[in-house]
Amino acid sequence: MQRRDFFKKAMTVAGTAAIGSVGLEAKEEVKTVHPVDDRKVSEIAFPQKQPLITYSDRPPLLETPRSVFTSKITPNDLFFVRWHMPIIPTYINSKTFKININGVVKNELSLSIEDLKTQFEQVELTAVLQCGGNNRTAFKPTASGIQWGVGAMGCAKWKGVRLKDVLNKAGLKEESSWIGFNGLEKAVYAKTSNFVRELNLEDLHDDIILAYEMNGEDLPYLNGYPLRLVLPGVYSDSWIKMISNITVTKNRQKLHFMDHAYRVPDNDCECETPENLAQKTKPIEEMNVNSLIGYPTSGTRVKKDAQLVVRGVAFDAGHGIKKVEISIDDGKTWMEAKLDDGKQGKYAYRAFNFTFNPAHIGMLNILCKATNQKGDVQPFAKDIKWNHGGYKYNGIDEVKVEVV
Amino acid sequence: MQRRDFFKKAMTVAGTAAIGSVGLEAKEEVKTVHPVDDRKVSEIAFPQKQPLITYSDRPPLLETPRSVFTSKITPNDLFFVRWHMPIIPTYINSKTFKININGVVKNELSLSIEDLKTQFEQVELTAVLQCGGNNRTAFKPTASGIQWGVGAMGCAKWKGVRLKDVLNKAGLKEESSWIGFNGLEKAVYAKTSNFVRELNLEDLHDDIILAYEMNGEDLPYLNGYPLRLVLPGVYSDSWIKMISNITVTKNRQKLHFMDHAYRVPDNDCECETPENLAQKTKPIEEMNVNSLIGYPTSGTRVKKDAQLVVRGVAFDAGHGIKKVEISIDDGKTWMEAKLDDGKQGKYAYRAFNFTFNPAHIGMLNILCKATNQKGDVQPFAKDIKWNHGGYKYNGIDEVKVEVV
Repeated sequence: MQRRDFFKKAMTVAGTAAIGSVGLEAKEEVKTVHPVDDRKVSEIAFPQKQPLITYSDRPPLLETPRSVFTSKITPNDLFFVRWHMPIIPTYINSKTFKININGVVKNELSLSIEDLKTQFEQVELTAVLQCGGNNRTAFKPTASGIQWGVGAMGCAKWKGVRLKDVLNKAGLKEESSWIGFNGLEKAVYAKTSNFVRELNLEDLHDDIILAYEMNGEDLPYLNGYPLRLVLPGVYSDSWIKMISNITVTKNRQKLHFMDHAYRVPDNDCECETPENLAQKTKPIEEMNVNSLIGYPTSGTRVKKDAQLVVRGVAFDAGHGIKKVEISIDDGKTWMEAKLDDGKQGKYAYRAFNFTFNPAHIGMLNILCKATNQKGDVQPFAKDIKWNHGGYKYNGIDEVKVEVV
Repeated sequence: MQRRDFFKKAMTVAGTAAIGSVGLEAKEEVKTVHPVDDRKVSEIAFPQKQPLITYSDRPPLLETPRSVFTSKITPNDLFFVRWHMPIIPTYINSKTFKININGVVKNELSLSIEDLKTQFEQVELTAVLQCGGNNRTAFKPTASGIQWGVGAMGCAKWKGVRLKDVLNKAGLKEESSWIGFNGLEKAVYAKTSNFVRELNLEDLHDDIILAYEMNGEDLPYLNGYPLRLVLPGVYSDSWIKMISNITVTKNRQKLHFMDHAYRVPDNDCECETPENLAQKTKPIEEMNVNSLIGYPTSGTRVKKDAQLVVRGVAFDAGHGIKKVEISIDDGKTWMEAKLDDGKQGKYAYRAFNFTFNPAHIGMLNILCKATNQKGDVQPFAKDIKWNHGGYKYNGIDEVKVEVV
């Protein structure tokens, strides 16, 4: 590439990021492809983390390598990280930390972690946390946002208290209708909107929790210590980290991160083109059925005729995984993988494995595809429709191995 | 190194391996050091396995990389492999496979896997499997046997039936005293002793099982499909793989692998020197208290003042781990790590973690040391005494990281 070309390209990408827009390369074909999957982990680890794929250090944006997804639980120190604002506290005193519940409630509350642990029923729940923009690199032209590969997701066992129980203690006034959540992350510029998410009271259910533990340990700082919201089945934009305030309101506040970010076209295909962006949008909300191969990764060399065990994970919004299928002929025929016992619950990963003997020397594509109980099936990458935010990608996964 | 020196060294090592003896470098100081810990995983995977550190392909000898030991359970496809004979079946029909129980019993039995699953109580148990020669590279001069690093061990959930229940069904005759176990591995030379292990009836207990499942799946072939003996708390030499025959006898058969292999000096220090090998020996049996750091591994670069979480596993023969301690000043002072809830049971790994902020730029040694309920403490590597088989090493573990 010539120097001038390089700058042109760099400016295009920078421009896209800066103005949060698309369409600067308008002649590029609108399509989706397999997400980028060859990024290396960083040489240096963030606090409480192992080295991960690093997109930014301010705010911290860290992706989990594909090989971790052979496991039903994602370890805390390998769990992906995504913040919106660059300033997050690096020290919190868990003894003095309080979460405030206010707005149209009968009794405003200010609760410490100890209060949560002693005054409410303790509950545990295993659930997948996934960024709405996971796999965003699949979208061409480039969708705005973090250019994630396949690992902006993880599955953990969360422990805490029911949001419902805390709201009941505060006592909701009759006119209450919306619940707004805010955390301790802060912007550099005073004018930046707070990262507030809102939930309609009608969508409140027993499995929404305020969690202080992740896989049997305190939450890591980068995953929201000392307390985060857990909203199983929906994308992670609503899972507020370092949650410090809950405000109950009569009307929706309609702030930036609800009314503009994390939305897809409100049409059947949830799709649009750069030249013709959808006028009406809706929140991304429920996660699409999805699956990923953890082993082998692309580039693995395996022996001809030797039993190869393909391992990975599948999940959806909580309808339940019905089956995972594997193809070694580029999707012409499919064979069913073995699923784990499902005892982690409906919001968690189902681990799968599939054994076969590679019969021919050379390159081999291995595909996996999940179907849920509702009948939703992962489509091929090419059949996913484009949206400007690069949200909700769930194309059939594929790795390329070498049989020797 | 000059070419002649290289050959001299190579010949010495080859000679040691071939005659299974020691002392060819008699002037070398007798000592133990930290085990070798910089071997890379193979480029190609064995059947049903991910790429592992490969010592031999016939018989298969595969070691688990250190980084796996942040997990309480070792995945099947990362679990170490050790066979004695080069010939092992690569296909077994689980429908027609039978295990025979014979010798001084009232009813000789021939049981299929289906018989085991339907005629006996099914039991599950999580236990560490560790080669008696794990860490053998710590012994100088070189001890005979596979030159293992730190990963000839793993922890799995085993499912099967109690050996006791099967023996009760056969009915032991009054004169019964020893139980001999044999599997399907075969030597190349007809004269090679069978790999038979014997257990005294007095040592039979409820937790000894014939296992057909490992972590919720059929055993991998390389870990003993379709059935293996599980003897929790003792080194793996007794955990017969692909177990096909159990013979109850009146007297001990005293075969090669009981009377010569897997034994240590029968003195208080279990030690000897190459010039003065112990005359009296005893089986290696109960595992020493041990622990290992899984993260960080040596060579990891971490940030100064950033919270570093050290993670690893500890275990013993079943007395129970009392504490794991970490030192960052080469053993002068020790700080206690957090242990997991211990719900995996007394024979399993206890996972631990310890968080601190590295305060100085430069190289840093991190040590870990376990103590069990009986009061046994891991010694420093240098304080472990030499034995010719290189067995039972359990020196305080150490990794070297770079703080930047």
